[in-house]
Amino acid sequence: MNSFNIAILGCGTVGSGAAKILTECAGMISDRAGIPIRLVRIVDINAPSVIAHSGLQPDLFAGGGKKLTSGEASQEIQKIITDTAINCVIETIGGTSDWLNKAMTDILKSGKHLITANKAMLAERGAGLSAAADAAGVSLGFEAAVCGAIPIIKNVLDSFSGDEIISITGIMNGTSNYILSKMQEENLDFDTALSQAQKAGYAEADPTLDIGGGDAGHKLCLLTRLAFGMDIPYETLPISGITAISPADIDFAAQINCAIRLVCHAEIKNDELYAAVRPAMVRKENFLSGISGALNAVQIHNRFAGTVLLNGKGAGSLETASAVISDTVCIARYPEKNVYSSRRAPVKKIPADFSHLPHAFILSFETKDTPGVAGLIATALGAHKINIDTVGHNRKNKDRTIFTVAVKPCPGTQLDAAVAEITNKNPGVIIGNPKIMPII
Amino acid sequence: MNSFNIAILGCGTVGSGAAKILTECAGMISDRAGIPIRLVRIVDINAPSVIAHSGLQPDLFAGGGKKLTSGEASQEIQKIITDTAINCVIETIGGTSDWLNKAMTDILKSGKHLITANKAMLAERGAGLSAAADAAGVSLGFEAAVCGAIPIIKNVLDSFSGDEIISITGIMNGTSNYILSKMQEENLDFDTALSQAQKAGYAEADPTLDIGGGDAGHKLCLLTRLAFGMDIPYETLPISGITAISPADIDFAAQINCAIRLVCHAEIKNDELYAAVRPAMVRKENFLSGISGALNAVQIHNRFAGTVLLNGKGAGSLETASAVISDTVCIARYPEKNVYSSRRAPVKKIPADFSHLPHAFILSFETKDTPGVAGLIATALGAHKINIDTVGHNRKNKDRTIFTVAVKPCPGTQLDAAVAEITNKNPGVIIGNPKIMPII
Repeated sequence: MNSFNIAILGCGTVGSGAAKILTECAGMISDRAGIPIRLVRIVDINAPSVIAHSGLQPDLFAGGGKKLTSGEASQEIQKIITDTAINCVIETIGGTSDWLNKAMTDILKSGKHLITANKAMLAERGAGLSAAADAAGVSLGFEAAVCGAIPIIKNVLDSFSGDEIISITGIMNGTSNYILSKMQEENLDFDTALSQAQKAGYAEADPTLDIGGGDAGHKLCLLTRLAFGMDIPYETLPISGITAISPADIDFAAQINCAIRLVCHAEIKNDELYAAVRPAMVRKENFLSGISGALNAVQIHNRFAGTVLLNGKGAGSLETASAVISDTVCIARYPEKNVYSSRRAPVKKIPADFSHLPHAFILSFETKDTPGVAGLIATALGAHKINIDTVGHNRKNKDRTIFTVAVKPCPGTQLDAAVAEITNKNPGVIIGNPKIMPII
Repeated sequence: MNSFNIAILGCGTVGSGAAKILTECAGMISDRAGIPIRLVRIVDINAPSVIAHSGLQPDLFAGGGKKLTSGEASQEIQKIITDTAINCVIETIGGTSDWLNKAMTDILKSGKHLITANKAMLAERGAGLSAAADAAGVSLGFEAAVCGAIPIIKNVLDSFSGDEIISITGIMNGTSNYILSKMQEENLDFDTALSQAQKAGYAEADPTLDIGGGDAGHKLCLLTRLAFGMDIPYETLPISGITAISPADIDFAAQINCAIRLVCHAEIKNDELYAAVRPAMVRKENFLSGISGALNAVQIHNRFAGTVLLNGKGAGSLETASAVISDTVCIARYPEKNVYSSRRAPVKKIPADFSHLPHAFILSFETKDTPGVAGLIATALGAHKINIDTVGHNRKNKDRTIFTVAVKPCPGTQLDAAVAEITNKNPGVIIGNPKIMPII
């Protein structure tokens, strides 16, 4: 092999960033890889617009720089799959379609390395792709799929390979974090913060995957596979998004020296793996509470090394592309095996029910402004053997009366049962469903 | 090769931690490496005391577990060098002696991989060791040499291989940081904080290398070599330690919303590499100001990925040993080349004079309590074309009057010239030498 030849499929935000680094810094990355790295082909249906924005040479594009129909693009991808001069494909098309899954599988089967930022495909259908890469003896690189510029994949796979990871806790969705930070810092309601995020380019026109927690869930699935050698099927991962977070919740968090963040968490406890994505009250002394805007941050707790924190930009064209290119360099340096094969022996653990994991919680009840409410809630919690940590002031929030209780660690199921009883037995006193949030 | 066989030379704090992980977690790390990893020999002159503390099997020790003379230990190391069944040596003896340098070189020349936590040897005599490793086609691993449990070496070498590192800024000496934090949090003077650090096991009986900045300097030399492909000779690196920091300095830092930290900094500017170790006023909004106790933290600023922060334990037996073992796993996985060979093409840059790098500074003058002092200092700075940012209150600190000025970025040389003139021209007004500290 005289050079390591790259094709890019889909030249949008991340793809065009990768093309820019590959062309501008070809000398630097070739030196590091120990072999010339060459971008030789780009397939994009909107080549003329990509060329206009990026300044990339038209002859790099399949079709010479003209627009392609989907059918033509498909044919061009087939040509790349059968082109033995191409060593590595960067997939930045996105989505989880059968068509793309087949193309990615065929790329790996053809003996080409595959680098992708496609967290949805990897989380939902990654096992087959991993197996195809291992079988073909090629690498499936996906540093760019989790936390953008933070090199969390290489850290989990390599840097802590002399250790046992006990837990991973992190802010992994920049859109949600941008919205929660805006709500907190500028007293905005959710819809206004979301629309500002969309205007600023931090949220998509359809933000469901981000604000619903699905995107964070995809990333957590990928990390649990690497850190604990174990697949949590995406559809079984407990995920709550941030759409129900109100300004009153944000205010209350501030009053108790917390910030609300969408937190991904996975941990091994008593030989079981617990994982979930949910909004949490993050105490001020926890560094995750200070992560503001579209940043991402991850806290890895190791058996021997203790806690290591990583923090950086979770998205962006060149930020995410730099992760794609670091994969490119590592793979070109070690082309003989799957650099990203999960090196964690599968733990003999089954995914456990997250609601059984004991946790400290904050409960907020909207109540009628009447004597005896604090007593009835506290008594009912005690009857369910739930230990109260602190009882908040019974406070007015605009026209509502809110009563809050912090409880010591107990399983979510135990708390849910207690809260359901309190709510059902006191229909005139407790208004609506209380909010329950873990405190970390 | 049916197994990857390890010998440990020197079984003190880090060596015994490595032995513990190698024996307790042999199955886990062998799975990750894809080959059985076996600890087969330990050389330590005080084997009986190591065995008593660690519970390691006596038959692992050269000499069967008895005490060795230096001569006997030397002979045992020679046997390891010629033993073709040993694949990798972990050196945790320490120091920069000719004898050890020759032993390390001979280990590499014999075709064995070498893993070391010996930052002093690597910083002062590392070029020869690197060359020996490259020539023999073996790895020289040293993740444990910089920032203990923080995987900074692998991050600089691999994780950002798709990017250009612009600067590295960090707290890399836990002892100094412990002392500065204690002074700040408990209002201690330097000597008391140092003696507490010694009692708590965070400072050695002879703390010179730590408090003088030499240890941090060693680490910065290693990182500049990896990040910028360039050797800064250790003896040319500007290094100031923390011994001159007084409680008054700490108080003043708090008044201006800063904390004093011993900061390692290296950056590329106008194609030149600037590097230094010195105490700095760190603004509260800079995450380094919040790094307390014996923790380490590093901020890497990349051209494409932006800023990534890492934070974790900088020392400790198992913490540092986990870095040794992650090197072991990575090397066992890729035994065919030097995994830690600097993959940064040498930049065509010469080390620049750090005092020429423009920087914002805080100046503190001890002055006579007399009218006109502020005017004479401000006028003299202006005459030297130094732009004043803010003028502090002329304040009393116990029996002394302190006048402080923050200046906008200017080269240290320009500031030194101005301050020398102010001091020399006003011997009755300016008392002693003003303190000059960069503000970051």
